[in-house]
Amino acid sequence: MKNKPDVLIVGAGAIGSFYGAILKKAGCRVSTVLRSDYEMVKAQGVRITSPLGDLSYQPDQVYRDGEVPSEAPDFLILCVKVLPGVDRVKLVAPWMGEKTCLVLIENGLGIEKELADAYPSNPLISCLAFIAVSRAESGVIEHKAHGKLVMGQYPEGINDNCRVLSKLFQQGGININLTEKVVGERWRKCLWNTPFNPLSVIADGADTRTILETPGGEALIRAMMQEVVDVAAAEGHPMKQELIDKNIAGTRKMPAYRNSMALDYLSGRPIEREAVLGNVVAIAEHHGIAVPHLNTVLVALKMRAELEAGHRINGDEGIS
Amino acid sequence: MKNKPDVLIVGAGAIGSFYGAILKKAGCRVSTVLRSDYEMVKAQGVRITSPLGDLSYQPDQVYRDGEVPSEAPDFLILCVKVLPGVDRVKLVAPWMGEKTCLVLIENGLGIEKELADAYPSNPLISCLAFIAVSRAESGVIEHKAHGKLVMGQYPEGINDNCRVLSKLFQQGGININLTEKVVGERWRKCLWNTPFNPLSVIADGADTRTILETPGGEALIRAMMQEVVDVAAAEGHPMKQELIDKNIAGTRKMPAYRNSMALDYLSGRPIEREAVLGNVVAIAEHHGIAVPHLNTVLVALKMRAELEAGHRINGDEGIS
Repeated sequence: MKNKPDVLIVGAGAIGSFYGAILKKAGCRVSTVLRSDYEMVKAQGVRITSPLGDLSYQPDQVYRDGEVPSEAPDFLILCVKVLPGVDRVKLVAPWMGEKTCLVLIENGLGIEKELADAYPSNPLISCLAFIAVSRAESGVIEHKAHGKLVMGQYPEGINDNCRVLSKLFQQGGININLTEKVVGERWRKCLWNTPFNPLSVIADGADTRTILETPGGEALIRAMMQEVVDVAAAEGHPMKQELIDKNIAGTRKMPAYRNSMALDYLSGRPIEREAVLGNVVAIAEHHGIAVPHLNTVLVALKMRAELEAGHRINGDEGIS
Repeated sequence: MKNKPDVLIVGAGAIGSFYGAILKKAGCRVSTVLRSDYEMVKAQGVRITSPLGDLSYQPDQVYRDGEVPSEAPDFLILCVKVLPGVDRVKLVAPWMGEKTCLVLIENGLGIEKELADAYPSNPLISCLAFIAVSRAESGVIEHKAHGKLVMGQYPEGINDNCRVLSKLFQQGGININLTEKVVGERWRKCLWNTPFNPLSVIADGADTRTILETPGGEALIRAMMQEVVDVAAAEGHPMKQELIDKNIAGTRKMPAYRNSMALDYLSGRPIEREAVLGNVVAIAEHHGIAVPHLNTVLVALKMRAELEAGHRINGDEGIS
């Protein structure tokens, strides 16, 4: 591997653009693959405001779908949302070289396997981002707080690629937790996300304080968290029971905020329902574990998706 | 009791106006207590289109809150929605005579007790309406289909008041099922309403077909129905297990439609959350019966109500 590797960000939204900026700052050659912001970024780069300072940069190359670099990148960082209509295997295919290390900075559970299966000889790094960042307008990203990455080789271990990449991120000012068990870390993150995120959507975009302070709200969150703990344990990723208390207490300490799925919902953007919730319920079913609270939320979200897909009826007769 | 009794409809919305028309047709003296439609109905009566013919009528008296009739009615028919902010005991107080029979045509479970407690020496009739009727505009009601009433004395039995009133409704063209066990009948109606109605709200107003045909939808409805069956049995109102199959099959046979709570939700009107769902969950808790599916929906609805009550946060920071 070169001392300053070539990095390609596929899906350079808020998260991808931000971590690209960090690697650029660390001296990497950073290119991006863009869709809607292609023209803007090609013309004037990415502008990023951040507590870390001005992180604005001009990617070394700006690509769009269909274009291919002359040389495959050392690291291909995939930051697209994990959505049913998005074929991530196909999305990265044109850019994958023989030795390209595929890096996922994405939410959810069970999201690595299809990529690992499709590219069995490429190293695969799985990352969890703890960050508050959003796209203000085309080519303009606002990094508000945090930024830590939890990183490990998939399905487990820490390889040289992890070490190289984590050092680069650290040089750019980002905290990195290297982990031997990144799948277990995904379960720990989902302990919070799987209850809070989807529940906030069926509760019409509710913030953390509303969720916890509504009568029965904390108890419901705890029941959903317990279901996540049970499923994780069956999958070989036991979590300490007190982690539930810690998650509740930690959330209560923070000011009220809306999670990323609530914001996606309120903005009419698609939500990562399967990655964050559906896969957990499917794994529960595989193990024969009852998850009635999670399942109720999942099915309600599926009904909403059916309606959004245009399967609404025209009649409006109500029977009392 | 007079041969043609005096009837007062309190809360003459779509349902109250319709059943008032039926009793008017049967020869009763029918007066109404109105709020928003007072001026319109006072000036030009109630216009009702119906498969039963033109049911339009001029109430004998049109009252509004604060006014009191010179003579108390024989039957006071209460048709307001059962909502947390609505004090039904207070609402009927000015109109209740010593011998006035109080008649409830209202949805939900556990809705009689506070009125029975407040007026212990007045006869109390509890009714369930199976009807499709709506208010098109001020003073204009559209009766679309059905109309059957299930009727009994509260808490149980069939008294002379039931017999008199049921005959009058039948004369007006309405089917009546007199029942010795009206509370059990409420549970039978809630077997459908308690799952379908609140679930349709968190599923953004989903119709019956969407609810049943979404993957996992029928299974979720069946799980919620099973919880209602379990709670009803603990309350001394056992239902046959096959009633669940019958409800599902019956719903599938009908064209897709939105239930009344879904319509209320979509129109921004308040929903009868506690009467239809909250009371069932409270009774379950009283008996120590787990109702995780019902409870998840209930708490999500409470969170939505918190947001609607203006407890939204201003910040919108999302943490991924």
